Amino acid sequence: MPIRSVDPRSGVAFGPEFTEADEAEVETAVARAARAQDALGQAGPPAIAAALRAAAEALDAERGDLVALADTETALGTARLAGEVGRTTGQLRAFADLVATGAHLRPAVSVVPGGAPARDVRKINVPVGVVAVFAASNFPFAFSVAGGDTAAALAAGCAVIVKAHYGHPQTSQRVAGILSATLDRVGLPPDTVQLLHGGTTAGQLLVGHPGVAAVGFTGSTAGGRALTDLAARRPAPIPVYAEQGSLNPVVLAPSAFRGPGSRALAAQLGGAVTMGAGQFCTKPGVLLVPADHREEFSRDLIGVLGTAPPAHLLTAKIREQYEQAVATAAATPGVTGWRGGQPGTGFGAAAAVLSCDQPALVAESALREELFGPAVLVVGVRDVGELRAALRVLGGNLTGTVHGDPSDDWTLTALGVLAGQVGRLIYQGVPTGVAVVPAMHHGGPYPASSSARETSVGTDAIHRFLRPLAFQDFPADLLPSALRHLS
Amino acid sequence: MPIRSVDPRSGVAFGPEFTEADEAEVETAVARAARAQDALGQAGPPAIAAALRAAAEALDAERGDLVALADTETALGTARLAGEVGRTTGQLRAFADLVATGAHLRPAVSVVPGGAPARDVRKINVPVGVVAVFAASNFPFAFSVAGGDTAAALAAGCAVIVKAHYGHPQTSQRVAGILSATLDRVGLPPDTVQLLHGGTTAGQLLVGHPGVAAVGFTGSTAGGRALTDLAARRPAPIPVYAEQGSLNPVVLAPSAFRGPGSRALAAQLGGAVTMGAGQFCTKPGVLLVPADHREEFSRDLIGVLGTAPPAHLLTAKIREQYEQAVATAAATPGVTGWRGGQPGTGFGAAAAVLSCDQPALVAESALREELFGPAVLVVGVRDVGELRAALRVLGGNLTGTVHGDPSDDWTLTALGVLAGQVGRLIYQGVPTGVAVVPAMHHGGPYPASSSARETSVGTDAIHRFLRPLAFQDFPADLLPSALRHLS
Repeated sequence: MPIRSVDPRSGVAFGPEFTEADEAEVETAVARAARAQDALGQAGPPAIAAALRAAAEALDAERGDLVALADTETALGTARLAGEVGRTTGQLRAFADLVATGAHLRPAVSVVPGGAPARDVRKINVPVGVVAVFAASNFPFAFSVAGGDTAAALAAGCAVIVKAHYGHPQTSQRVAGILSATLDRVGLPPDTVQLLHGGTTAGQLLVGHPGVAAVGFTGSTAGGRALTDLAARRPAPIPVYAEQGSLNPVVLAPSAFRGPGSRALAAQLGGAVTMGAGQFCTKPGVLLVPADHREEFSRDLIGVLGTAPPAHLLTAKIREQYEQAVATAAATPGVTGWRGGQPGTGFGAAAAVLSCDQPALVAESALREELFGPAVLVVGVRDVGELRAALRVLGGNLTGTVHGDPSDDWTLTALGVLAGQVGRLIYQGVPTGVAVVPAMHHGGPYPASSSARETSVGTDAIHRFLRPLAFQDFPADLLPSALRHLS
Repeated sequence: MPIRSVDPRSGVAFGPEFTEADEAEVETAVARAARAQDALGQAGPPAIAAALRAAAEALDAERGDLVALADTETALGTARLAGEVGRTTGQLRAFADLVATGAHLRPAVSVVPGGAPARDVRKINVPVGVVAVFAASNFPFAFSVAGGDTAAALAAGCAVIVKAHYGHPQTSQRVAGILSATLDRVGLPPDTVQLLHGGTTAGQLLVGHPGVAAVGFTGSTAGGRALTDLAARRPAPIPVYAEQGSLNPVVLAPSAFRGPGSRALAAQLGGAVTMGAGQFCTKPGVLLVPADHREEFSRDLIGVLGTAPPAHLLTAKIREQYEQAVATAAATPGVTGWRGGQPGTGFGAAAAVLSCDQPALVAESALREELFGPAVLVVGVRDVGELRAALRVLGGNLTGTVHGDPSDDWTLTALGVLAGQVGRLIYQGVPTGVAVVPAMHHGGPYPASSSARETSVGTDAIHRFLRPLAFQDFPADLLPSALRHLS
């Protein structure tokens, strides 16, 4: 089926048709990537750092056009999209800085005592091979063609094949063109980053290809799991680094209601729920509040969500899944539901505030499904015992947030349980707005991501695409230069 | 089926019967491990370092008895086994030293500019959870109950459940007793390391249990793959770090025959083939030599293997598989075979030198199966084109070794191809005798291991059992101590 852009504000398709990559196209792309990868290895880290910087400059130079195009395909708004281009080019520059230091190579040397002559063992990180990147729907720049996974893989010295998200094919094509032209200009193969369009079929061909060594993915748990399963069944399995769905529980301890109070908390968290039409993997999806504050807090939250600007979801499919998920949760026994007014056009979707008590959350798995869009579930909790049980049943998440005094029983209980289940703990804040800094960890125990050990944000993301190679008793002139003078 | 020790020198069973762990026993072990893990977290790194050191001392103190017992179960010989205990306690001490520095926690802090107040993000490594360790047949100490995987997991702060290898149940039981007593003595739960006996059923129960967070395995490719597949099919998949089979190709370039010469090379490599009855994952299994040296070199190798002491394999099953694999390879078209004299008793196995030319190796996958035991395949190669193709078809391996002048075409070609396919390159040496040092990498692209990124030897092995946890905007007194004073 051909792929075309659709304006989420109107639901009307526009622009050129893109065809799904078939077996021959995937075969050609992998063969080209393998050659590009060899060239990248010859060029070495300084050339890669230069290419990353040049790509950042080229994207910044076209920011205005890129933002306008992406807004027609995603309705995310020009302010947010302009910020996202900045984040994307910032990521490229951060990886360039890292690559220039060589720290990511983690060179090490050990002299083995006892031998005559003593044995000399050295190791250094090398690229894993060709990387397939699956672009996300909700970040047309930062988790797409020139996004974090691509930047990390390129920085590691890997050639990249990106499968565009069908929600923004023109933006993807435009960014890929800028990248290829830039690579060519700095003397690297333009095929170092290639773009394919398509859905499940193209994705499966890519993940199943013996020439692909690793996969980066950002999307739903179901989508990530399908790729992970496929990769695990290969004759030679490969890792899929999938950043998946997350409920991002927020605990509002009794002391938080004595402190900031219900309205202030609702304003802060409601803003995080509606931002980007609620289409963030870090959207706070489940808010655990003391049972006696549940009603007031839900009312305050409805006040915030009821006055938020109308939301347009990214694609028809996302809107359909959102409506279905909200309807299913709202129809679950023990759940009280509120829906905002329905925007009439395109992929418009009304906000939702659902509410239940702790036993319903624990009993009904339907209440623990991600609502990808501007919806939130408020859960009334009676005591720390119920709090502990509720958090346990919410399982692996990208983030966990706690509002409350450090002396509050709820605060310590929540932090204790969440520490074992999430990748990032937030105190008195909101989980959205992931800072792109070296100390960030963006990943978490399953189902939040396929590997709790890996981050898809920050420069540590490069390590997904590197592997160590040891050299034993090598003459200096046969060693990689970074190992040659190490002692 | 009950498990009993068998003397490989006689084939006679001896000692107590051990029963395979059933569902209830696995359930109990996991519940105890979870509690022990909590206690370990409370105790913190200094207590863990002290426990690792105390365990090393206790094992060293009983070295004589342990070696004698293990020799009756494995026939590996007391000298080798005494060395292996030393390696095992050395590993425990190396992890203790690392844990004492705190370097494995990789604490990091980033202040996010722009906010008011600026956001503060910190991260640190935390234990992944309960770890299951599958002991190896061929290292009754160093890759068994108190071996590298257990030491790495404990050092990371994880409780461990070891599935003993059925080849040395008494040694396993004895070591587990020493560990538990030591843990108890230093004030940690004796259940921090638990031992289960059993085969496939117990193993599957363990890997399938939701309370197990990661798996360490050393053994065959088939065994590792079975566990990896099982872990990937769980509702919440977990990583299996499997160190599997390997052919460890060795290239002898034409210049090596002009230098050391055929006899010296045969002595060096033949020693590595017969050491430990050829039961090493790093045994050189395929030797690639110039076609015109194939006959002479094979003869020299037969001279070395023909005078080696009789080999007793570890178990009846290993002996059976060895005989079958050698027979299959010997019966493959184009293969010339030599078998040493047959030792008459127990699990005795004759050495084998098989030989073929490059086209046979490329055409017949049967020649690319690991021969776990004292057997080796010599392959005659006509030119660098054949060399490149032969190495490519040998695929992922733990190691690759090259003998030859740096100026030799063969040397550079071999190193270039092997660099993309192995975890460790050895120049002019043998792949056996893995040095336990920080710069060692013991792992390689599939099928050598399940994750080319991880090592199962050296202190970097700890990172398989750690995951990052980020803290955003935390007050100092709620932070882990290692993050509190970081700026």
